[in-house]
Amino acid sequence: MTLAYDGTQYHGFQKQGSGLKTIQETLEQALFVLTQETITVHGSGRTDAGVHAQGQVISFQSEIRVPAQRLPLAINSVLPRDIRVLECVDVEPDFHARFTAKRKTYCYKLYNERHMSPFWRYYAYHIPVPLDLGKMQQGADYFRGTHDFSGFCAKDTKVRNFVRTIYDCEIDNEGPIVSFRITGNGFLWNMVRIMMGTLLTIGKGKRLPQDIPKLLAAGERQSVGATVPPHGLYLVSVEY
Amino acid sequence: MTLAYDGTQYHGFQKQGSGLKTIQETLEQALFVLTQETITVHGSGRTDAGVHAQGQVISFQSEIRVPAQRLPLAINSVLPRDIRVLECVDVEPDFHARFTAKRKTYCYKLYNERHMSPFWRYYAYHIPVPLDLGKMQQGADYFRGTHDFSGFCAKDTKVRNFVRTIYDCEIDNEGPIVSFRITGNGFLWNMVRIMMGTLLTIGKGKRLPQDIPKLLAAGERQSVGATVPPHGLYLVSVEY
Repeated sequence: MTLAYDGTQYHGFQKQGSGLKTIQETLEQALFVLTQETITVHGSGRTDAGVHAQGQVISFQSEIRVPAQRLPLAINSVLPRDIRVLECVDVEPDFHARFTAKRKTYCYKLYNERHMSPFWRYYAYHIPVPLDLGKMQQGADYFRGTHDFSGFCAKDTKVRNFVRTIYDCEIDNEGPIVSFRITGNGFLWNMVRIMMGTLLTIGKGKRLPQDIPKLLAAGERQSVGATVPPHGLYLVSVEY
Repeated sequence: MTLAYDGTQYHGFQKQGSGLKTIQETLEQALFVLTQETITVHGSGRTDAGVHAQGQVISFQSEIRVPAQRLPLAINSVLPRDIRVLECVDVEPDFHARFTAKRKTYCYKLYNERHMSPFWRYYAYHIPVPLDLGKMQQGADYFRGTHDFSGFCAKDTKVRNFVRTIYDCEIDNEGPIVSFRITGNGFLWNMVRIMMGTLLTIGKGKRLPQDIPKLLAAGERQSVGATVPPHGLYLVSVEY
């Protein structure tokens, strides 16, 4: 099932068991209302509190006999309006939204104008100063390829392997919206937000694009940029 | 002063005196915090509950000595984030945001996809069925020029003259967003929303573009389309 959600009102994707509203719990409740089955959904990955999705993918097992293509309308009728199911297809029993994923694309959006737009306040990070987008793209180019991203992630005790491959990494702008779009075989915790924070220091002239290879080699979290806020981040799509 | 606002949380622009939150009251309170003066602001026009603005213009008198260009940052620091002042300039004492206005531009946005996007739920009207945009543009062309719009407005006892001139009237689309952009010398109550409702009946094949001149000539509210909801409507700009 492919879904889009506005993460503003949620404490992330993953069930917390703490009474805090999450995407996973909201979906499982909707599926229960529809099927009367207790269903556990598996996301392609967690998204943190406030992070959005245009194409999150989840998988689950169910006895329900409604044809898959009829499910989106049915589930949307019981889901809150900030979560929408866009597509549903039958898959092989060994399909798993997380383990079968081959590539993921994220996008981080900036609103680069002196005064923030009220329409983007939950959907892009406000940068009121001018940015050198050409330099940011030069910096982003160094992320392409296979690297150890130890310096570009938050501590996550469960992770041992920090090597990831980045296939694509583009800075674009359309009016005041600057988008950083990145495709890779996987992402570490906060990785996109820390990459964006680092590219911002380049865009503001505080660092050079050529510093990126050195920061990758050093692998020190404290040497790279800050983690930018979650509300500019979107999980765009997952490929299998 | 030019401002943008997300109208979702407001009971329209105009002060109600009923405890309901409006744009005007929120602005006047912010100006009071800043200046300690009781200031009445005049908008270029009312916007209804839920209607947005990208370029509403207001005028007011104040004794404040802060240079006009420094006011946006100061006022934005006390305003809620769903209202942003974009620009402030000194004007002649006889300038009045409403009476001096020469042309206004509105935009109505549709989200034309089977499933609604969670990101547009407060910012565009969901139309899940296909629309014939070419026919809608043909219909919109008939609105250009000077016409009596008696049939295309809600009852407003204060209005005697229903003749308005439309300078421009365009249907555009960018992905799933269909925009109806209209510029005129003035607009009657709900006029843009009723025009959009009527163009929608054309886009769905229930009426012909050539019906528009007949509907204009007949001047009967009950013959034209429904009033579409407020959350797709934006006051784009006002010219003086």
